[in-house]
Amino acid sequence: MSRASIVTIGNEILSGITVNTNAAYLADRLLTVGISTVSGFTVEDKIDSIVRALKVALEDADIIITTGGLGPTSDDITREALARFLGVKLELKKELLEKIEDFFVRIGRQMPANNKQQAYLPAGTSAIENEIGTAPGIRAVKNEKIIFCLPGVPAEMKMMFESSVLEELAQMVKQSNQPVTVLRKVNCFGAGESTIAGMLEPLCARDRNPLINFTADCGVVTVHIVAIGKDYNEAIRLAEAEQEKIVERLCELVFGTDQRSLAEIVGGRLVELGKTIAVAESCTGGLLAEIITEIQGASSYFTHGWITYSNDAKMNELGVGVDLINRYGAVSAEVAEAMAKGARARAKTDVSIAITGIAGPSGGTEQKPVGLVYISVDSSFYSRTRMFKFASDRASIRLRSANMALNIVRLALQKLT
Amino acid sequence: MSRASIVTIGNEILSGITVNTNAAYLADRLLTVGISTVSGFTVEDKIDSIVRALKVALEDADIIITTGGLGPTSDDITREALARFLGVKLELKKELLEKIEDFFVRIGRQMPANNKQQAYLPAGTSAIENEIGTAPGIRAVKNEKIIFCLPGVPAEMKMMFESSVLEELAQMVKQSNQPVTVLRKVNCFGAGESTIAGMLEPLCARDRNPLINFTADCGVVTVHIVAIGKDYNEAIRLAEAEQEKIVERLCELVFGTDQRSLAEIVGGRLVELGKTIAVAESCTGGLLAEIITEIQGASSYFTHGWITYSNDAKMNELGVGVDLINRYGAVSAEVAEAMAKGARARAKTDVSIAITGIAGPSGGTEQKPVGLVYISVDSSFYSRTRMFKFASDRASIRLRSANMALNIVRLALQKLT
Repeated sequence: MSRASIVTIGNEILSGITVNTNAAYLADRLLTVGISTVSGFTVEDKIDSIVRALKVALEDADIIITTGGLGPTSDDITREALARFLGVKLELKKELLEKIEDFFVRIGRQMPANNKQQAYLPAGTSAIENEIGTAPGIRAVKNEKIIFCLPGVPAEMKMMFESSVLEELAQMVKQSNQPVTVLRKVNCFGAGESTIAGMLEPLCARDRNPLINFTADCGVVTVHIVAIGKDYNEAIRLAEAEQEKIVERLCELVFGTDQRSLAEIVGGRLVELGKTIAVAESCTGGLLAEIITEIQGASSYFTHGWITYSNDAKMNELGVGVDLINRYGAVSAEVAEAMAKGARARAKTDVSIAITGIAGPSGGTEQKPVGLVYISVDSSFYSRTRMFKFASDRASIRLRSANMALNIVRLALQKLT
Repeated sequence: MSRASIVTIGNEILSGITVNTNAAYLADRLLTVGISTVSGFTVEDKIDSIVRALKVALEDADIIITTGGLGPTSDDITREALARFLGVKLELKKELLEKIEDFFVRIGRQMPANNKQQAYLPAGTSAIENEIGTAPGIRAVKNEKIIFCLPGVPAEMKMMFESSVLEELAQMVKQSNQPVTVLRKVNCFGAGESTIAGMLEPLCARDRNPLINFTADCGVVTVHIVAIGKDYNEAIRLAEAEQEKIVERLCELVFGTDQRSLAEIVGGRLVELGKTIAVAESCTGGLLAEIITEIQGASSYFTHGWITYSNDAKMNELGVGVDLINRYGAVSAEVAEAMAKGARARAKTDVSIAITGIAGPSGGTEQKPVGLVYISVDSSFYSRTRMFKFASDRASIRLRSANMALNIVRLALQKLT
């Protein structure tokens, strides 16, 4: 009970309209409880195609997860396809219909007639509750193998998977007494992949168990620990012992070992310390504030943000001196520092961050090339301005700058008690 | 010659470490030349798994594109798998070996011994040049069907596909004199999927050619026109005639027919008109500014942004009266309007946008539930504040609000000359 296959249903995925992020999410989460994804299928909204994929998937795996095709329109045929695959009929579930009707009452709209089809399930299967949408999921069993059909909308899929699927699968794996592969992570910031690999030698040898892999994304380096054990407990023990070792070795490069982003870690720390933060952004154009405020509850520590894209904005809103801009240019350590100090003075927060740079693709010069970024952090306990040169495209330069700024604040906050 | 299947090879995709963006890229590009992707497979780095996927893919399609498994390590087994699938042996290609050796000379490094395996190809197949890496692609033919094996690294894959694969496929489609499917799009904002479907009746009938599909993402509704012609020219003619008809019917709901986003359309219009814009954001927390400034060249029209998350920020930075906040609350039409007017006065831009609302998940009340958002636009030619109720999660409420704001500005700018 530790091999999964993921079947992604929907023309919008096959035609390239939508990137299949669901499959990666599921595979990643499954590995945390010891389930390896051994195959993936992407199929059209056609009953025959779905049935064939389910058949082939069942050859590979003892757990199948499908996403998509549970909506109310005529394209949504996962219910019919599953019924065909199981060799049963669709049945109207009254309690399901009531729940869907309730959903529409709650949002103050009349239920369209075609939402009724979402209350039909293949005979012998059960519904999985959808807390944020109308499409219920489906749980089915065939030849002692288990099939979960989840919605395609990522937010609904994730909510349903986390609250109604993952725990059952984890229990199954724990009780199976079979070899299990699990994944643990160590999230780092502040050094490149190869530096970190060097710091971890000889843990990175290819013939070891656990096996260590790396991924890097705009400055965030994730160490992936893949451990195989003769059962769940052994695999977890191996993986977590390795994780502890790596956290110790990488020391302050490590910002987390779970799903939390840099912004969540920084936000959590600000809450713990009862401190507030403000930002002043030029080249990142609101991205840093956006990353900070996408975390729920950010209003308890984030109060003010300025996007001072023009020189006028830097002068009038943050009090950056015209002489500084004339002498050093808008992209300079001096202006970054003045932005940070101006923001903290105006916002009266404990910490402020300022970013000014050249995100490109145009606007660079020989002296100040695309990718040149100054980040300044100001507070009563840490004040410093640093220069960076990021070799990348506009989007990556912006994200790398925002991440770097958060990391500087993380390290500054770490030292406080 | 117009049905493709995409086989993605690699444990890092299956385990969720890497999101499969290659498949979406390929499918989208293939459709532009009249090739529909009818199935997708993701397989482990195992010969048996790859061979089985190739077999099943060949049932569906007459074009197979694989990505991944062409590197120099022992995990890279696409060459062996393809040879097994074709029933031939691997042969050393001398000219390929020379090219790989040249590559290492060029980058000033010694060729590692295991890169030699990249010079082996299945007998009877040909190499596809890799301009930016060492892994050559492979072109093979089986039962009059064509197979392209491309590298997994997105930049190498895209370069190879664009320079050595797409044109051959386009020519094949044009010359095939066989039915061809092409895609055209109409991007809309301002009405829901079902309203737009209603406006397009009877074009949306399921048995029609062209076939009309819809996708919706935080307020952006995309109409997909899938046209089948007896040959390439007919398909294009059908799709483009339908596109024109839909643009005419949906009138000002339509913001574009290409890849450009709402922010790019609004930005382009501001450039045309020589006008500037500023934003004042509360619940969107910088997202609107971020979307505007991710477009290169935004600094020519975007000058100032404020993220006034706290009441103090709204009062001190934008001059919102304390009495307005006390009487109506921070989430109110009155405060939204004062934010917009304050932002325009301070920034001295032609247009300003303000957003205040409750993004949730907490902070809602019976009177002011999560999802309540006020958007105010101020300019000399258009000034209005509107209320919205978005039923969604935090991230979607934020993105929907930012998109709605851009759309209001788009419509206001549309009327100007």
